[in-house]
Amino acid sequence: MTDTNSAPYVVGIDLGGTNARAVLARRDGSILGEVSHPSESAGPAEGTFDVLARVVAEVIAEQGVKREEVAGIGVGLPGIITPQNHCIWSPNFPHWRDVPIKEMLDSRTSLPSFFLNDARCATLGELHFGAGRGVGSMVFVGLGTGIGGGFVINGKLLLGRNGSVGEIAHHTVDPSGPQCGCGNFGCWEVFCGRDRIVRRAMAKLQLGTESTLLTATGGRDLSPRAIAEAANDGDALAKEVMDEVGYYVGVGVANLINMLNPERVVIGGGVAQAGELLFGPIRRTVRARAVPFQAMGCEIVPAQLGSDAGVQGAVVLVLDRLGEHVAPGAA
Amino acid sequence: MTDTNSAPYVVGIDLGGTNARAVLARRDGSILGEVSHPSESAGPAEGTFDVLARVVAEVIAEQGVKREEVAGIGVGLPGIITPQNHCIWSPNFPHWRDVPIKEMLDSRTSLPSFFLNDARCATLGELHFGAGRGVGSMVFVGLGTGIGGGFVINGKLLLGRNGSVGEIAHHTVDPSGPQCGCGNFGCWEVFCGRDRIVRRAMAKLQLGTESTLLTATGGRDLSPRAIAEAANDGDALAKEVMDEVGYYVGVGVANLINMLNPERVVIGGGVAQAGELLFGPIRRTVRARAVPFQAMGCEIVPAQLGSDAGVQGAVVLVLDRLGEHVAPGAA
Repeated sequence: MTDTNSAPYVVGIDLGGTNARAVLARRDGSILGEVSHPSESAGPAEGTFDVLARVVAEVIAEQGVKREEVAGIGVGLPGIITPQNHCIWSPNFPHWRDVPIKEMLDSRTSLPSFFLNDARCATLGELHFGAGRGVGSMVFVGLGTGIGGGFVINGKLLLGRNGSVGEIAHHTVDPSGPQCGCGNFGCWEVFCGRDRIVRRAMAKLQLGTESTLLTATGGRDLSPRAIAEAANDGDALAKEVMDEVGYYVGVGVANLINMLNPERVVIGGGVAQAGELLFGPIRRTVRARAVPFQAMGCEIVPAQLGSDAGVQGAVVLVLDRLGEHVAPGAA
Repeated sequence: MTDTNSAPYVVGIDLGGTNARAVLARRDGSILGEVSHPSESAGPAEGTFDVLARVVAEVIAEQGVKREEVAGIGVGLPGIITPQNHCIWSPNFPHWRDVPIKEMLDSRTSLPSFFLNDARCATLGELHFGAGRGVGSMVFVGLGTGIGGGFVINGKLLLGRNGSVGEIAHHTVDPSGPQCGCGNFGCWEVFCGRDRIVRRAMAKLQLGTESTLLTATGGRDLSPRAIAEAANDGDALAKEVMDEVGYYVGVGVANLINMLNPERVVIGGGVAQAGELLFGPIRRTVRARAVPFQAMGCEIVPAQLGSDAGVQGAVVLVLDRLGEHVAPGAA
């Protein structure tokens, strides 16, 4: 047995446009400690990889663990990652051009690293430690600035030629809908992404509708999470927004159920905090739009890991790539 | 080696609402002979399974082959087939209710049988012997009365819990579109299925537009294939219909490319006979609607096997289930 196979610890990293967050975990997924630093996304790739090396070094040192006790590093990041471990596109790192990500991290840490798109990473996290435990087929929908996704069939996360199976944001749900940043018209993300949710609430506030959102923020700094929370506190305007968002989330979720027949659809992101005020309209829309033989026995549930899904998934990624079979549903 | 592993022949069956067509093939997929009989779809399941047993017996006998020289029987049929080999839903066999299909055929033939949805069967056929040869990831789109489909990722046909991954017909491409037979509004099938194509042509004919379609058929018995052929012969009305159909096919194909990043999209069915008159607008729409990082390097091509895709896929199904690895692209 090599060190890699017997080393008791794993590092999981969630690399975002704002922060790089690293956890040290045991092979069973239990988290021992974490470190976070700004990810320096505005600069060249080298700076960001120096940050990654630093969070790895710090999270190991803080727990008094030796480098040779770490089996590997898993990293989830927003972008398209080829099987050759090049990141060919990332919305959050404007200076990255076909970056050899594995090479750049391995050379800085002398540990084997493994990379995966952040939404697929969260899918692995929810599958093994969260709302997807015990299921063989699952669709993950992460509602954030955009919409991330991941498809699991027969216990396996689908990747495809560029690790980009499960990119659900830009499927058209209304061909005559508003234009998306990608150039297409009526992408799912245009109707359910952060901007749209905030703008719907703003438009209603500007019509003079009473709302706690106005009192609390003056209408500024609105976030999907704040709107979801206001809806749960009984705010009528916020509930209306959740209803509209839920309808469009439902149209896309019905599409995924119709095509993939999952056992479970797991929906995460700040807006999922709205609970039944969001999931009610989602389920109603799915009942109206999904083919019965595909929807039969499929549950639509909120994600359970919140912002930990990414780092938890990054831990699963390492164990999986090192050939340690992680059974679906194993906690 | 058991007989099943060494027997040199395989029977492949394409079971439709009209006919049951069986071929006898060698293990390399080459077809030696075929037999077809009406599938008795209006009656109880027993009658249809008697027909299946009959086409098996006849196609074997006609080639002078002994039953013990046949490794197994593959059957593609329109419907949803569980991993337990029950058909839980079929649009073409109204009397079928949770039919134990494998049990009913095995008991009639004393040969091992294997069942798969017809569109997924055609996917296997095109993947191994047709337009999908040599690719690792592929989406098959079969345009017929409805729309059938199949997804291949990393060389494997995806099935999921009820063999129904790849059911693409009822994904919504326009939520305010016409109602579909399934109850939903704006399903892809509503815009690209046989009925819609024929009705678009009829509506144009009724406006008095000149067309060879009118001369040839008096506007009756129009079929997507006939419209495709008229378009290719230069008929302006038929070309207009192909253009409209191509747009909607393109919206759905862009969705599949955006979510699945295939190397190749293979489009079959009578209407695909229109060639560039259909594929031109499909490709234009995909260029406008697919995310560049997902569409990059993806080809959109016509199917190659025509009505043989099903029986060819049924042969692949048997070899695959008997554990004989059939490499993608092996002819």
